Amino acid sequence: MKFLQKEIRLKARNRGFHLITDEITSNFGEISELNTGMMQVFIKHTSASLTINENADPSVRTDLESHMNELVPEEQSYYTHTYEGPDDMPAHIKASLLGSTVLVPITNGKLNLGIWQGIYLCEHRDCGGSRGLVLSAWGY
Amino acid sequence: MKFLQKEIRLKARNRGFHLITDEITSNFGEISELNTGMMQVFIKHTSASLTINENADPSVRTDLESHMNELVPEEQSYYTHTYEGPDDMPAHIKASLLGSTVLVPITNGKLNLGIWQGIYLCEHRDCGGSRGLVLSAWGY
Amino acid sequence: MKFLQKEIRLKARNRGFHLITDEITSNFGEISELNTGMMQVFIKHTSASLTINENADPSVRTDLESHMNELVPEEQSYYTHTYEGPDDMPAHIKASLLGSTVLVPITNGKLNLGIWQGIYLCEHRDCGGSRGLVLSAWGY
Repeated sequence: MKFLQKEIRLKARNRGFHLITDEITSNFGEISELNTGMMQVFIKHTSASLTINENADPSVRTDLESHMNELVPEEQSYYTHTYEGPDDMPAHIKASLLGSTVLVPITNGKLNLGIWQGIYLCEHRDCGGSRGLVLSAWGY
Repeated sequence: MKFLQKEIRLKARNRGFHLITDEITSNFGEISELNTGMMQVFIKHTSASLTINENADPSVRTDLESHMNELVPEEQSYYTHTYEGPDDMPAHIKASLLGSTVLVPITNGKLNLGIWQGIYLCEHRDCGGSRGLVLSAWGY
Repeated sequence: MKFLQKEIRLKARNRGFHLITDEITSNFGEISELNTGMMQVFIKHTSASLTINENADPSVRTDLESHMNELVPEEQSYYTHTYEGPDDMPAHIKASLLGSTVLVPITNGKLNLGIWQGIYLCEHRDCGGSRGLVLSAWGY
C-alpha cells in the first residue's frame, strides 16, 4: 500500500467555475503508480470550492455560476459578515454548499471518472488569487 | 491492508430520490472482509448524485425532490445549456449541490451508518437510465 | 499503513453552526501517529451535518444559519414529512446539501487545514441533542 501526497498552487482564476482536471493530473503523475486506489483533492480555502461536473460544454460552467449567484445573492440584509466586501459572505456559503473535497477512484493508474466528468475549481471571490490544494492518493 | 474495488450498474430509476443501500451492499459483500475501514461510492455521471439521508419514511425522499425543484427550477431565463432539454441544466446543478460521492466507515465488517441513515441515488433526469457506480473499500 | 477508528459523542448544541475542530482533535490524538494520511469525520444522523468553513469570525457561522434558513424554509406547503415538527424536514434537506462527511489530509501528524479553515457541526434541529461521530484515519 502506498500513500502519496503533495501540495500545489493553482494559477489564479476569475470568479466562476473552471475545469482543472488536467492541471491536477499533470501535477500528480504519481497516481500512475497505483493500480487500484483513491485520490482526494482538498482546497485549503473557505471562499472557493471543488466539485465534479461536465467536462465538455462550457455553458454548464457559465450556468452554474449564474445559478449559484441566484441561490446565494450578495447584499442580503441579514448578512453581518460584510467587512471583506459583498462577494465574501456569499463565497463562504457557496463553499460549504459545494464542498472542499473531491474524491475520485483510481483504476489502472488513472482517475476513474465518467466520460463526461471533470474536476472544477469553483472560484467564489472576485479576486481570489492563487488557490492552494493538497493532493493525496492511496492504494496499490 | 486491503483495497477492494468494483464497478456496478444500478437499475434505471425515475426522477427522484431512491434508497439504494441494499443494492450496494448486496453487490459488495467483500466489505465483510474488512474489520475496520472505509467505503466510497462514486457515481460516474454529472446529472445524478449520491447522498445519505433517512432510510425509513419515504416522505423524506418525496420532499427532497420537491424542494430541490424549488431550489433549482427548470426554464430559468439565464440558462444557456438548454439543448438537452429543460431537465438537463437543473440536473447538473443539483448534482454539484449534492455531490458525486458518499464515504461511509466500515466497522466489524459492516457499514457503520446511523440507525436512520441510508444511501440515496438522486436521479435528476426525467429518463436518466441505468447509472454506473464505482465501489471502493479499504482497511484491515 | 495504519487504520485508526473511534466513535465519540459531541456535547449537545443549539441549532446553528458550531466550530468543533478542537473537540475532534482532542478526542483523536492518535492522528499524531500518522506522518502522511487522511482523516474522515462522519456524522451518524440525518438532521445534522458537517462542513469546513472559516475558523475565525463567528459572524460567518451566524450568516450561514440565516442563509440556510432562507434556502430551506420551514412550513413549505409541499412538505409532507411534517409529523416531527416544522424544523425536521428542513433539517433533512440541509443535511444533504451540506453533507455527512468531512475529509481532511494529515501531514506531519496534524490536520493539514488551511490557516482559516475549521470543522463545523451544522445542527439543523431546534433540540438535536448529542450527536454521534465516527472518526477514522489512515496512512503512514
